[in-house]
Amino acid sequence: MSERINRAIIDDAFWSPYGKLIRDTVIPYQWETLNDRVADAEPSHAIRNFRIAAGLEEGTFKGWVFQDSDLAKWLEAVGHSLATHPDQELERIADEAIELVIKAQRPDGYLNTYFTVEAPDKRWTNLTDCHELYCAGHMIEAAVAYFEGTGKRRLLDAMCRFADYIGDVFGTEPGQIRGYDGHQEIELALVKLFRATGNERYLSISRYFIDERGQEPSFFDREWENRGRTNHYSNGIPAPRPNNEYFQSHLPVRQQSVAVGHSVRAMYMYAAMADLARLDGDQELLRACERLWDNTTGKQMYVTGGIGSTHHGEAFTFDYDLPNDTVYAETCASIGLVFFAQRMLRLKSHRKYADVMERALFNLVLAGMSIDGSHYFYVNPLEVWPEASARNPGKRHVLPSRPKWYGCACCPPNIARLIASLGDYVYSVDEASKTIYAHLFIGGEWSGELGDLPITLSQESSLPWRGDVKLKVSLTKKARFTIALRIPSWCDGEQRLLLNGVPVERETFAVVDGYVYINREWSDADTLNWELPMKARWIMAHPEVRENAGKAAIQYGPLVYCLEEADNGKPLASLRFSTESSLRAEFESNFLGGAVVIRAEALKDEAGGWEDGELYAPASKKKHFETVAVRAVPYFMWGNRGLGEMTVWVRAD
Amino acid sequence: MSERINRAIIDDAFWSPYGKLIRDTVIPYQWETLNDRVADAEPSHAIRNFRIAAGLEEGTFKGWVFQDSDLAKWLEAVGHSLATHPDQELERIADEAIELVIKAQRPDGYLNTYFTVEAPDKRWTNLTDCHELYCAGHMIEAAVAYFEGTGKRRLLDAMCRFADYIGDVFGTEPGQIRGYDGHQEIELALVKLFRATGNERYLSISRYFIDERGQEPSFFDREWENRGRTNHYSNGIPAPRPNNEYFQSHLPVRQQSVAVGHSVRAMYMYAAMADLARLDGDQELLRACERLWDNTTGKQMYVTGGIGSTHHGEAFTFDYDLPNDTVYAETCASIGLVFFAQRMLRLKSHRKYADVMERALFNLVLAGMSIDGSHYFYVNPLEVWPEASARNPGKRHVLPSRPKWYGCACCPPNIARLIASLGDYVYSVDEASKTIYAHLFIGGEWSGELGDLPITLSQESSLPWRGDVKLKVSLTKKARFTIALRIPSWCDGEQRLLLNGVPVERETFAVVDGYVYINREWSDADTLNWELPMKARWIMAHPEVRENAGKAAIQYGPLVYCLEEADNGKPLASLRFSTESSLRAEFESNFLGGAVVIRAEALKDEAGGWEDGELYAPASKKKHFETVAVRAVPYFMWGNRGLGEMTVWVRAD
Repeated sequence: MSERINRAIIDDAFWSPYGKLIRDTVIPYQWETLNDRVADAEPSHAIRNFRIAAGLEEGTFKGWVFQDSDLAKWLEAVGHSLATHPDQELERIADEAIELVIKAQRPDGYLNTYFTVEAPDKRWTNLTDCHELYCAGHMIEAAVAYFEGTGKRRLLDAMCRFADYIGDVFGTEPGQIRGYDGHQEIELALVKLFRATGNERYLSISRYFIDERGQEPSFFDREWENRGRTNHYSNGIPAPRPNNEYFQSHLPVRQQSVAVGHSVRAMYMYAAMADLARLDGDQELLRACERLWDNTTGKQMYVTGGIGSTHHGEAFTFDYDLPNDTVYAETCASIGLVFFAQRMLRLKSHRKYADVMERALFNLVLAGMSIDGSHYFYVNPLEVWPEASARNPGKRHVLPSRPKWYGCACCPPNIARLIASLGDYVYSVDEASKTIYAHLFIGGEWSGELGDLPITLSQESSLPWRGDVKLKVSLTKKARFTIALRIPSWCDGEQRLLLNGVPVERETFAVVDGYVYINREWSDADTLNWELPMKARWIMAHPEVRENAGKAAIQYGPLVYCLEEADNGKPLASLRFSTESSLRAEFESNFLGGAVVIRAEALKDEAGGWEDGELYAPASKKKHFETVAVRAVPYFMWGNRGLGEMTVWVRAD
Repeated sequence: MSERINRAIIDDAFWSPYGKLIRDTVIPYQWETLNDRVADAEPSHAIRNFRIAAGLEEGTFKGWVFQDSDLAKWLEAVGHSLATHPDQELERIADEAIELVIKAQRPDGYLNTYFTVEAPDKRWTNLTDCHELYCAGHMIEAAVAYFEGTGKRRLLDAMCRFADYIGDVFGTEPGQIRGYDGHQEIELALVKLFRATGNERYLSISRYFIDERGQEPSFFDREWENRGRTNHYSNGIPAPRPNNEYFQSHLPVRQQSVAVGHSVRAMYMYAAMADLARLDGDQELLRACERLWDNTTGKQMYVTGGIGSTHHGEAFTFDYDLPNDTVYAETCASIGLVFFAQRMLRLKSHRKYADVMERALFNLVLAGMSIDGSHYFYVNPLEVWPEASARNPGKRHVLPSRPKWYGCACCPPNIARLIASLGDYVYSVDEASKTIYAHLFIGGEWSGELGDLPITLSQESSLPWRGDVKLKVSLTKKARFTIALRIPSWCDGEQRLLLNGVPVERETFAVVDGYVYINREWSDADTLNWELPMKARWIMAHPEVRENAGKAAIQYGPLVYCLEEADNGKPLASLRFSTESSLRAEFESNFLGGAVVIRAEALKDEAGGWEDGELYAPASKKKHFETVAVRAVPYFMWGNRGLGEMTVWVRAD
């Protein structure tokens, strides 16, 4: 059993600037933040916590109990970045940070600055709340990324010691703690550690955590009883019994069918489940993954790729409950959804996984960051009324503009590590069938082997503004294998394939589960043109989604659009469309660096016929409309032009 | 200066059964509750608190810090009830309860069982949270009602002693506390005490509380500092600074223009302000009342007469923010709105006040209670999805069915006292212009004097099911005076007046501010027929109400209608109407004791064209409708037929 990553080096008109932003702006800025050197951001204290734990400095731990993970995510992003863009100075800084991490590690391998500094005798006594294994998981992911990016083993070896120790502490043997973490993360990290080391023990520890979760009697309930029914935040005062649904520990994971609880926790767990299902050939686990995927994306996902309908517990609620204005849709949750999709694609190349991955990436994940990379959303609403965010407490969590940084800074470094590793999501390879799958259409170069055969695949893509994709094969000799191209659902079956410039008949190649399988003998420099027609169109939601009844959204290719007050005045709710009406897509080079905007016409309810203080009136007396021109802009670009209303779903009939 | 009530004795096909329900069911049930004798309801402990404070029993105080007000509201309801429906046994029980109250009173007049039992040295140290003057106000209201209902002065005299003591403690003189209560109530109660006693000191204490409120420096801020920045509920741990908007103490009341904060507090205060504006001829205060009225009802009121858009602080949010599904719209707040309207009508007979009073009474207030009087709503939503109430924490406060009773039982006794005193809201009299105003069309008999002239006015009304009203004058001699009838805005100027059976030309009598002024020489047995055409029609909300964009509601006469799942299946949001379509009103004698229901046709989105797990799709592929017959029922009757969806606002174009 072995694991490989299939990383492309991104070179794409749309995505490369984001990669550059991450390298030039986000990673350096985050480093300053971790070191408390940004004057107008909340101090992170993350580096200081490590220095104190390492004995280099006196002081107390500060920040969230999971503050260590901020440094871990930064190191992971750096690892990914160095893999494709070497940078000596950055590597020197990261090496130093890694030495600091190793100094903070205890002799037995344990690493956690909160417990080391504040409560060394309390290790593993509150897995429910305290994120010890979560932080461990992130540092393991960092170690793997840094190893894969630089070849350096210092952090990897340290994290192997930690993982070995974790494997000693946890398990079903006498003397072991039969527990698991409140925030899943270690599970998928251990799979990566197996990939980097080939050591199957890490897989088996991961498998233990997955299989133990949700077994009766509840581990979290027992922990809570043992703590005198308190929790980490209750200052010794009795706190409610842990909500096992929140932690996805309400049922053994193999019995789960419905996405519940904290959505980031859920995604990280599902991703690990999919990893294990594949590596173990575990059909029961696979079926659980499929059920959870179908429920998440088929019943509980926003059209933007957002998940998590409520800020209470940053959680899923229930099927078809997708409020646009009190939504949570945390950036990290959709990043987790991308992770889950990537794992499902390695189990089975079905378009539905890649369609969702693309939806989340091009819409929600990018919306989590301002165009200039300096401001971030946690919560990604589909409808914003800034006054309501300010004055209706039920919408206080729905910020109408991106803040600079967060005390709980999970989302910004998560975006950074995802974009820095974007090349991992474009392709997958099935060695057995000699098939290279192209899931995403993002330009760049992938090099790998099928058996002994070295192959390079270069992609040029004009997404998301146009649907022209070109793939070029570089080979040292002719060879028969398959390139499978995804047929995005948004092109409505109107895709066109050209092989070396010659149109290919539809029947020539098999289409299975939304992929066309181009099986042939390839020669060096063969090219594929993959033409994916994009047009703007009205999208509806399932009638059970009460929130969107009588409404439609605009989609163009993979992009979901929104209306902003900056273009269309307010209230946006006063606009009414016909889904028969035409939508005109136009590239505007001056719009925030260039974008396709959509132009349409709407009827606007006029308030002119209403007297001041007249709140309700017979409909027969109040029909005043005017026709207005509307501009819709890509959702991911919203909130970059000052404060104002925004909506994805508009009234339409 | 003197004050009078203008009470009618209700005899009305629609309302009398509610009065009977209050007398036969609610008042006895509440008495059992106050005595902790209802097995399946939370114990109130209210009577026991008084017994303990009176030294008749050992024990500790239990319940909310304002638990005393439950007994006070019960006594007030009993006082109102005895005024029109003598009941020896009930009066005996109430007399005993009053003796208990008086036993619990301290020698200096102070009365509050919480402080007497639990913290005798802490009197008046936490007006912000502890409701001492609020409870005083309710017991004063009870005393006045009981005096006016029975002629008995025991409680009235006791409450005068309390009020005298309060007047000594509070004020601007040296040694007095320059404060006011966190929950307004004492202010309007003292005006009633003036009415019952003629003692102008009570007016001046009320005036002090009104004028002091919101002056700088903030009294609540100072109290909070003096308490070591704690509050009553924080267990000695520092708590946030009081939110003066919540208490309407953010500005001197005369400077207020926008309804903010806790909506019940606001209404009770505005009612007292209107009382004082009238009694003092205070134009500045009057203008503040008008501004606050216009803002409350013209910018922040639901079509049902509900107010308070958020459960966070049971509060107003801001103009045009009227979410239907996360609404608060507490029953007590609309009862307070009825109080405010009644006071405004005594300042100026303008239809807008009575229209709102009628709207709140016939819709929201009645909806607060089940048809059988045994179950009550606090929160009165305009849209309910039972699964969302159960599974989306942001809607947890929106109960989809009425619970039996509440630990914080403010609403049920508030409904009881309002309905028991409904006769106070029908008429008002302007002595100077010799005008009797009929604001509401509720059958019954009113007797009073204009100068020396005794007059009896009998009303028969078929509201709310039909708009036929008949008024008969009984006189001992002919006399010239004016009867002013409100022209409800819902009859759209199509009213018809008959005098002694003869139609009256429109121009015969002056119409001012929505009242027709019938000034003539009246003879005994003169009759007026007031025919108010009712038809079902579509109502729209102002375009700034984003929540209701593209929606309409059905109104028939004063009644707002809703759709329920019981009649129309679910999701209700899948129904779409045309506001051009006909609405057919039909009286159904079998519907919950008889009601006018509205029949209409709608297009229903069909889920049949959607595959399982298909959540979004191009609109062009998903247009499946069927025409369905719909039944709408009066909003006040919703939730009496099992759990299900309900909505007031429906999609309409």
